[in-house]
Amino acid sequence: MLEIVQLLVDCYECATDLDDVDFLLATLRGAAERVGAKIVNVVTQRFSPRGVSVILILAETHLSVHTWPEHGYAAVDIFVCGEGKDPHPAWDVIRGALGPGSFEKKEIRRTIGEKRS
Amino acid sequence: MLEIVQLLVDCYECATDLDDVDFLLATLRGAAERVGAKIVNVVTQRFSPRGVSVILILAETHLSVHTWPEHGYAAVDIFVCGEGKDPHPAWDVIRGALGPGSFEKKEIRRTIGEKRS
Repeated sequence: MLEIVQLLVDCYECATDLDDVDFLLATLRGAAERVGAKIVNVVTQRFSPRGVSVILILAETHLSVHTWPEHGYAAVDIFVCGEGKDPHPAWDVIRGALGPGSFEKKEIRRTIGEKRS
Repeated sequence: MLEIVQLLVDCYECATDLDDVDFLLATLRGAAERVGAKIVNVVTQRFSPRGVSVILILAETHLSVHTWPEHGYAAVDIFVCGEGKDPHPAWDVIRGALGPGSFEKKEIRRTIGEKRS
């Protein structure tokens, strides 16, 4: 049994180009590295006429970003599983890269593994 | 601006084979179809010695499941964006397929798009 914190962040008024797949991918890679999470797979998706989804599959969990460039908005999910793993440094990396004018961050506690007794 | 509900569900004591990628993929596809979500990309990942991640990228958001078969545990995220989209029927499909003995479901409200005034 493992108690973890998953971060769900709505980022508004982002100062960066939210239609830039390479930039977003590099940002998530940097976030994963910062928390020592192992990246096992990557998927990127570009939408028409704009908008991007990038998901990194980590050892059993994921980091994701979905963007709406026309609204300066990005939905960030940081689901990092592992003994003693703290998701907040990953958020620091993403926040620094996206430069949101404001954001709403939710911290969700989850219990991974066998049912708690 | 769009108010949506994201479901994060910890599923315990699942009655099904959580190491079966095809089954999990078919389950998520069925869940997406039930709520009329458009699937634009799929990624599956098998871990050694066991464990599976399946993520469907939908039109701008995602469905994901990460499993720990040795614990009968699955982490399900249902992030379905769209005017009037309700994630609960997707959960009904997944719950029916995984057959958890118990689960903990969290409903997270997010505001997508431009910042609320």
